[in-house]
Amino acid sequence: MSTLDNKINQEQLTPTQRTQIKRVPQRGNYEPQVIYQILDEGLICHVGFVVDNQPFVIPTAYGRVEDKLYIHGSPASRMLRSLLSGIEVCVTVTLLDGLVLARSAFHHSMNYRSVVIFGTATLVQDADQKLEALRAFTEHIVPGRWSEVRPPNRQELQGTLVLSLPLTEASAKVRTGPPLDDEEDYNLPVWAGVLPLQLISGEAVADSRLHTGIVLPKYVEEYIRK
Amino acid sequence: MSTLDNKINQEQLTPTQRTQIKRVPQRGNYEPQVIYQILDEGLICHVGFVVDNQPFVIPTAYGRVEDKLYIHGSPASRMLRSLLSGIEVCVTVTLLDGLVLARSAFHHSMNYRSVVIFGTATLVQDADQKLEALRAFTEHIVPGRWSEVRPPNRQELQGTLVLSLPLTEASAKVRTGPPLDDEEDYNLPVWAGVLPLQLISGEAVADSRLHTGIVLPKYVEEYIRK
Repeated sequence: MSTLDNKINQEQLTPTQRTQIKRVPQRGNYEPQVIYQILDEGLICHVGFVVDNQPFVIPTAYGRVEDKLYIHGSPASRMLRSLLSGIEVCVTVTLLDGLVLARSAFHHSMNYRSVVIFGTATLVQDADQKLEALRAFTEHIVPGRWSEVRPPNRQELQGTLVLSLPLTEASAKVRTGPPLDDEEDYNLPVWAGVLPLQLISGEAVADSRLHTGIVLPKYVEEYIRK
Repeated sequence: MSTLDNKINQEQLTPTQRTQIKRVPQRGNYEPQVIYQILDEGLICHVGFVVDNQPFVIPTAYGRVEDKLYIHGSPASRMLRSLLSGIEVCVTVTLLDGLVLARSAFHHSMNYRSVVIFGTATLVQDADQKLEALRAFTEHIVPGRWSEVRPPNRQELQGTLVLSLPLTEASAKVRTGPPLDDEEDYNLPVWAGVLPLQLISGEAVADSRLHTGIVLPKYVEEYIRK
């Protein structure tokens, strides 16, 4: 853990008009470590932006390095080009942890952990920072992968736009635990509880063009078993 | 399958300026049955809307009935109140199917199925349609649940806003299959392939206040095993 993380760990982000959790505020959390953990466990974010008063919500991969979230794409991407113009963005990551089955239809719910980030993305122009971001994308998919694969060449680096979003205006929202039924419903003869959900990796499917003798790397094996 | 579904099955939705897949267009799909299947398998959607030129992306549950997507919430919800004013909405559902490990960092990817819907949500005021939507929410979580639980009472019905979004301007985007490496990279001694991902339910956790003798219903058992 970096010194920066240690420092930030001591404090909370200051809720703003945009990040303050209004519905069920006790589920809100503004601790960077809670926010970072959700971002690191997630694989896909949903990027919201506005073009001509029209909202767009696009799923995409991302990477985190300390207090920055990186997204990337082709210079031809409408999303990347729109964000490049310096417009406001809202990025949301949601982990679904369980289905909450209550005794009444009304109190059915889900256990989840989500993060919502507001801000303005900026283009990463520094070559070292760009490479660090690309490393974060690859390591975010499977830790250990970056050091094994062919790194980006000059053409690929030029053909990739990387945007950086500061993790300063962000909040987490977390629901855990059992269903919360109305008191009089606890006597109903209805099964109630939680079905825990987990995104799990099945057996690795080797590429059909893989040369014989290339075995599944240990870090991938560990990723599948975890 | 309803007659409506059968009818729609014959045709494609007409791509609009907003739904036309521009990046990697061969991954785009405008068939209602493909779109519906993704929506039915997903559990969470990300709702994008604009307030004062600021995008918001909020995760929430949903239900589908034929060519309508329903979302719901409390009348106190900022999201619901904003959408009620008739503003444009973008709703996105993403299923993550696999991590695609290529021989180069650049060609790492993910297998996914996503749906993006554009439109304007309207308040469901008809009592029967509202109840049908609430039934869809509960059945969407675990099929078979609605007939067992206590249905919404008058107070709960009044305390729930249900919004309807037509599934007419929508598109799906799907990536499947192995990594696509640069031809010269296929000789690298790097493992490549796909790690298939699946959202799986673990063993059901019974509510601690469950009366003894109430066993796990068969439809929940089936849901877990599937």
